[in-house]
Amino acid sequence: MKPTILITTGDFNGVGPEVSIKAAAHASIRKICTPVLVGPMNVLESLSRNLKLRARLQKTRLPVLSPEGIPVLDVGDGIWADVEFGRVTKAGGRSAGVAIERAVDACMHGLAQAMVTAPTSKEALNLAGYQFPGQTEMVALLSRSPQVAMMLVSKTMRIGLVTIHVSLKEASQSISKDKIVEKTEIVYKDLQRRYGIKRPRMALLGLNPHAGERGLMGSDESESIAPAIEVLVGRGLEVEGPFAADGFFGSKAYGRYDAIMAMYHDQGLIPIKMNSFGEAVNFTAGLNIIRTSPDHGTAYDLAGKGKATITSMLEAIKLAVHFTKAAE
Amino acid sequence: MKPTILITTGDFNGVGPEVSIKAAAHASIRKICTPVLVGPMNVLESLSRNLKLRARLQKTRLPVLSPEGIPVLDVGDGIWADVEFGRVTKAGGRSAGVAIERAVDACMHGLAQAMVTAPTSKEALNLAGYQFPGQTEMVALLSRSPQVAMMLVSKTMRIGLVTIHVSLKEASQSISKDKIVEKTEIVYKDLQRRYGIKRPRMALLGLNPHAGERGLMGSDESESIAPAIEVLVGRGLEVEGPFAADGFFGSKAYGRYDAIMAMYHDQGLIPIKMNSFGEAVNFTAGLNIIRTSPDHGTAYDLAGKGKATITSMLEAIKLAVHFTKAAE
Repeated sequence: MKPTILITTGDFNGVGPEVSIKAAAHASIRKICTPVLVGPMNVLESLSRNLKLRARLQKTRLPVLSPEGIPVLDVGDGIWADVEFGRVTKAGGRSAGVAIERAVDACMHGLAQAMVTAPTSKEALNLAGYQFPGQTEMVALLSRSPQVAMMLVSKTMRIGLVTIHVSLKEASQSISKDKIVEKTEIVYKDLQRRYGIKRPRMALLGLNPHAGERGLMGSDESESIAPAIEVLVGRGLEVEGPFAADGFFGSKAYGRYDAIMAMYHDQGLIPIKMNSFGEAVNFTAGLNIIRTSPDHGTAYDLAGKGKATITSMLEAIKLAVHFTKAAE
Repeated sequence: MKPTILITTGDFNGVGPEVSIKAAAHASIRKICTPVLVGPMNVLESLSRNLKLRARLQKTRLPVLSPEGIPVLDVGDGIWADVEFGRVTKAGGRSAGVAIERAVDACMHGLAQAMVTAPTSKEALNLAGYQFPGQTEMVALLSRSPQVAMMLVSKTMRIGLVTIHVSLKEASQSISKDKIVEKTEIVYKDLQRRYGIKRPRMALLGLNPHAGERGLMGSDESESIAPAIEVLVGRGLEVEGPFAADGFFGSKAYGRYDAIMAMYHDQGLIPIKMNSFGEAVNFTAGLNIIRTSPDHGTAYDLAGKGKATITSMLEAIKLAVHFTKAAE
């Protein structure tokens, strides 16, 4: 039987609903799963009409037994009509937040096998009273998953992040041995559990230029990263590093590892986006449920124009489906 | 007449002498310039013999009037015989340091048109009493160039750096409006002076993830980078940003600019090395003389084996030659 994949349509002032509808209607997706949109029915219907997407949206309940058209789990009850493309609004954030709550709940109760989240803006979520740094943290809390790590994955590399959505100042100050050990183990376990890699091989990057060059440009490598590697190796993990990030990616050394731990956001996202722009998938490791998302944001400037590309959303759904098989 | 290009052979415990000799003997180089090695004659001769490089090394003085074989400006006086491949030693640092002093002096006096520096280690330089963070700072001081900026250039992009060889903590704390304005102007002027671009178009990257996302992940963009852009635009420069670094490189937006200012080392070096590994050239903007260097380090682990690649050294020499023409 095909798995049911919930797609939360995200902030409706961005491109979320558009890429969600287009992806759910895509033949490559319908072949491998039953995609169910989780969002405000009236907004999705009017968008589908305005953009001439010709999607046959059908209200549904969970579990979806005999899917017709594109099933929609309506979170709107007719109150989300105030779309303002390109703007950060409370309504946009509230609609996105309610959809996440519903989807996590359904996955936790086994009514669906995985969820894929279209983008929303942190600012909009906050306006609506959802005080989370992002969807990742919200999904983690709602699914009672205390230890998670953000990953970006593509056909050429898998990146795990030690720090995520904080300023570079904060990231550089918050790198610690314990944090590196924790995040690396989360990624390691999901390489086994979700990807079925029995003995993952992982690389850890340095934080500083030239990985500190023996203490000449920073001591985080000797004080935090190398000690973390020692702990991990002691626990039987195959972990190497710390590597100077520029040479590591330049020489394609990443090809020798199942995953690479980057110390901060751009250190991991610059290389994966250079290799696989618009095709990378965001995946939350360590969750009690399966959750993926495309690698782009709300793209407010593109909203309502019908021009958003769905490559990354398609990849996100396919990866979620893949993980449901691995979990069987 | 062909320009005379001085090649300082760097730390002799690393790959510097090997890549210098190989490059100076290369037909593509001899066609466009008179390459002159600046290093310890006896070390270069024994290396050439041991690695069977078949280089006809000839002691010379400046100016080189009728070059025979590969001219060598001997800085050794027979005292540099203690090569210890792969080790950081005072002798290695001293030999590298003396060569830089001689080469800068010759360029300042018009006895050569440009210099190209093979790699040395900061640690070795320091051991020998040269208290500089790197060759760039040493060349800047000796050539009385108070304002310089490190650039990495390749066929696909030119990167200017606001901060260089400092820890990420220090880099993230030392970004300021004034520093960004200063470094951007240095790069801008050299795009005009060295590259002959009349009206350069430049991009400035953000410091934080998502370029701060409107203050949610850092305020450097609103407090330092945007104000710097305002100042620069006010002075008539064509400068845009701050851009989120991951999307900027992923979407190939760099193709629309003559140069990109990165806020810290890896933010600029990861992308250029991913695009042009082993072919990028390090160039010091703002100098009173012309100086380039390959994009790799001493590669101590490869020293003495004859396996070092010279692509980046060849590119560094060609760029130096190109600049001597632009300066005419």
